[in-house]
Amino acid sequence: MSLVSRGPADRAEAPELDPAVVRRLRDAVGDDAVFTSREDRDDYRDPYWYVEDRSYDSSAVVYPTSTEQVQEIVRIANDVRIPVWTSSQGRNYGYGGPSPRVKGSILISFRRMNRVLEINEKLAYAVVEPGVRWLDLYDAIEAGGHDLMVSVPDLGWGSVIGNTLDSGVTYLPLGMDYQAPTGMEVVLADGSLLRTGMGALPNSQSWHVYKRGLGPVLDPLFVQSNLGIVTRMGYWLMRKPEAYAPLYLTVPKDSQLEQAIDITRELRLQGVIRGVPVMQNTITLASHFPEILGKMRAHEGTLSEEQLQEIADSTGVGRWGQRTAVWGDRAVVEHHVARIKEAWSAIEGSRVDEYGLYTKENWGDIHHFLEKVQAGIPNLDMLEGRPDDIGHIGFSPVVPLEGTKVREVVNLLKRIAEDEVGVNFVAGLCTISERSTVLVSGLNFSTVDEESWRTAFDAVKHMVREAAKLGYGEYRAHLDFMDEAAEQYSFGDHAYRRFVERIKDAVDPNGILSPGRHGIWPQASRNR
Amino acid sequence: MSLVSRGPADRAEAPELDPAVVRRLRDAVGDDAVFTSREDRDDYRDPYWYVEDRSYDSSAVVYPTSTEQVQEIVRIANDVRIPVWTSSQGRNYGYGGPSPRVKGSILISFRRMNRVLEINEKLAYAVVEPGVRWLDLYDAIEAGGHDLMVSVPDLGWGSVIGNTLDSGVTYLPLGMDYQAPTGMEVVLADGSLLRTGMGALPNSQSWHVYKRGLGPVLDPLFVQSNLGIVTRMGYWLMRKPEAYAPLYLTVPKDSQLEQAIDITRELRLQGVIRGVPVMQNTITLASHFPEILGKMRAHEGTLSEEQLQEIADSTGVGRWGQRTAVWGDRAVVEHHVARIKEAWSAIEGSRVDEYGLYTKENWGDIHHFLEKVQAGIPNLDMLEGRPDDIGHIGFSPVVPLEGTKVREVVNLLKRIAEDEVGVNFVAGLCTISERSTVLVSGLNFSTVDEESWRTAFDAVKHMVREAAKLGYGEYRAHLDFMDEAAEQYSFGDHAYRRFVERIKDAVDPNGILSPGRHGIWPQASRNR
Repeated sequence: MSLVSRGPADRAEAPELDPAVVRRLRDAVGDDAVFTSREDRDDYRDPYWYVEDRSYDSSAVVYPTSTEQVQEIVRIANDVRIPVWTSSQGRNYGYGGPSPRVKGSILISFRRMNRVLEINEKLAYAVVEPGVRWLDLYDAIEAGGHDLMVSVPDLGWGSVIGNTLDSGVTYLPLGMDYQAPTGMEVVLADGSLLRTGMGALPNSQSWHVYKRGLGPVLDPLFVQSNLGIVTRMGYWLMRKPEAYAPLYLTVPKDSQLEQAIDITRELRLQGVIRGVPVMQNTITLASHFPEILGKMRAHEGTLSEEQLQEIADSTGVGRWGQRTAVWGDRAVVEHHVARIKEAWSAIEGSRVDEYGLYTKENWGDIHHFLEKVQAGIPNLDMLEGRPDDIGHIGFSPVVPLEGTKVREVVNLLKRIAEDEVGVNFVAGLCTISERSTVLVSGLNFSTVDEESWRTAFDAVKHMVREAAKLGYGEYRAHLDFMDEAAEQYSFGDHAYRRFVERIKDAVDPNGILSPGRHGIWPQASRNR
Repeated sequence: MSLVSRGPADRAEAPELDPAVVRRLRDAVGDDAVFTSREDRDDYRDPYWYVEDRSYDSSAVVYPTSTEQVQEIVRIANDVRIPVWTSSQGRNYGYGGPSPRVKGSILISFRRMNRVLEINEKLAYAVVEPGVRWLDLYDAIEAGGHDLMVSVPDLGWGSVIGNTLDSGVTYLPLGMDYQAPTGMEVVLADGSLLRTGMGALPNSQSWHVYKRGLGPVLDPLFVQSNLGIVTRMGYWLMRKPEAYAPLYLTVPKDSQLEQAIDITRELRLQGVIRGVPVMQNTITLASHFPEILGKMRAHEGTLSEEQLQEIADSTGVGRWGQRTAVWGDRAVVEHHVARIKEAWSAIEGSRVDEYGLYTKENWGDIHHFLEKVQAGIPNLDMLEGRPDDIGHIGFSPVVPLEGTKVREVVNLLKRIAEDEVGVNFVAGLCTISERSTVLVSGLNFSTVDEESWRTAFDAVKHMVREAAKLGYGEYRAHLDFMDEAAEQYSFGDHAYRRFVERIKDAVDPNGILSPGRHGIWPQASRNR
């Protein structure tokens, strides 16, 4: 497999689905839940893709409402040997959205399978179907008056299960290392139904409260996977704390990045910071601070170091800015905020902005975007003002939480963005865990300009290859370079991929579940 | 498969290994690393088993010192179709120790493959080989002067990797839900070498700092598993806190168990307790408080409720006692200790014993067993005074952390212990996580008395079946009833087991890796 650049646009539509297959699908899920027209399919494709390209065109979109219907769809797919591609809400823009890797796949959308099946107040967890959005789960918690919070990502319209299965990010303490998801129900390729962990015990009392079972642990095998379709999942929730303090920490100069990373790591390892902070550079911060956007628009084209510094200084957001928070008893929160301020003061000229101390009394006053996400209040604030015809694509390597290593990767990606695309480097350390961070670097492109689209994807693929040479790998790849990203994980003559392929062939012999997802292809499609 | 009681003792030795196979093994690992005599094999069998029974007899014990040697042993096993059974230190007494499930298996012992490969001070993790014991890792950390602590179990002689791969317990905050293990190297059944997660990227910088990779996550698949042999693993460590406060919490009356559980759960969910507390009943507490043992010996046979209450009252340990601790900045520790005391005071007549507040200044004063484990200081204190010919066996279901559910299971197991075996119920809630606990119930038996041994195993198997009827399953089973325990996980006509069996057949077609481990058998051995 060669590592290719993005080719020219493929304008050919997916072949039409055999009417007999459409009939069977309608029998399975109902006439109102199968869509095959180009218009209907286009309604449910990735908006962050060149509009003329149909490389990832589906042949139908099917909306099951029950696990039984999903099982039936899978049986049909096996019969007719047409692959299915699953998405929950399909909001993973920048990664391919709901589009299938293989043209002509039948899309299974879970948008109509969206029940919150349980909220367990005592044991602090929820059980959801894949169509449940963060917004829905939050509403269900609030409607039930539960003393619980859910760890949410930046945008509330995505699916809890979908985000989890993409290894997506959330920002409250349970977001660290994806601790929230626990206990799954999975439709297998033969249409049978599996329950993981303690759920394999009939009438299990402990399905969603214990992360293992007896024998090998399967839940994580269904992450970024095409080995089964998750139709139900437990998700741990957090008791509402006595106090919550959202903070914004500035890094005035780019040269202070290393120092900021090292301080953050120590605060995490010492248990002072327990959530999932994010640290973004000036341009990315425009989504939080509209005043930056105004300043940026005053300049033409790419901004120079001096111009960036001027924006950072005049708006006060800094060259990097960290969103973080503390949760807990009031006395503990106050102590930890003081510790953060003290540690951060070592960064010359830096600032720690306190966005208030929230308790049950003033919880309703939470309004700013920086406050809402870490309070578990899902929202769509980041979408505001985003032009329709601008997509984005990113490369997101996992980097140890060490200043020098983060700097090494930032320098590499910055060079490629500036030299090959001629744009400013846009980056966020979007998941700061205790020992690692995911450095999300982004490139915007025009979805109506073929050249702009191709340049962006070529540059990102170049980033994938160059970072791998230094030992840094992607945490999650866009459809268009899943193969290239997976290709880098080649230790032992691709021992990892061969092992997963053997599992794939054993549990999905016809290769009908999401072929090609994250570089895993069924036997018939492999030609290495 | 029928659920059978323990049969009469099987006194037949394993068939002798073909000398040609012995020769090949010696060529692979050296003459001094292959043992076949009965005496040598018996030196390395489970001491908690009836001495006359050879159901789990091995044909050889092999001590590799490198990954390459392990690969070569696996290749030989494939050639000659003799299964291997892996153990690290083989200290999992009560679960079968190093003994193989299939008589005549070749034992691979990792006792000589015991290097601490790395201690990363900045990122707070270690990388170890499977023979590394808690004692060894602790020594390496101390010898290097690192500002780090390791989450340890009650006994320090076991293997870090061995304990992890059995889903074993450790007690510091990283022990919660097994958060410490991260990134593995695995010898596969065909002798090839796999690296999980970010380790699949050659020269990966992030192998041991990030819990996932690109594509399906494999690490947990090697827990309680026979799909590969883990020869190297990352293990997260904790920064030494400013302060550490070990505590002992009493529950004076058995009827207060539910209340104690519910209070503990709220303290956990509120983030006040962050480690892994243990709550034991009076008899089990004898291993911590020798004065109990003296009182017990003053009585003949089984103790009545009144006698138990008298011991609990006169020694002051209570009917249940919880070992817990708080770690963090001094101000936070003091606040959280006060919170625990306040919450616990709701239990009538209860007490919170503070075992001192330790900081860097007085760390050397930590001496009591209750203090050492939660300070990450491995020891063998619990072994003291244990008679040689007494073994123990337990049933350990996972129970949601709710008073009423814990009570339901305690009552069931107590009834079986008292009515069927005629002994006092011995129990510890040995892993109190945020939402679940593992209730370890134990039965002692004489390893030189066939009747005593058989009665104990029959009773435990009965516990397995009866608890399953209520929806509670075993977290880890002894060799002798792995099949019975796995049999309970039957949802979807055993969808879980069939799925794992399909993986097993695909990645180990000759079925040579630890056949039967936790109920997973290769194709040739299945006759359901």
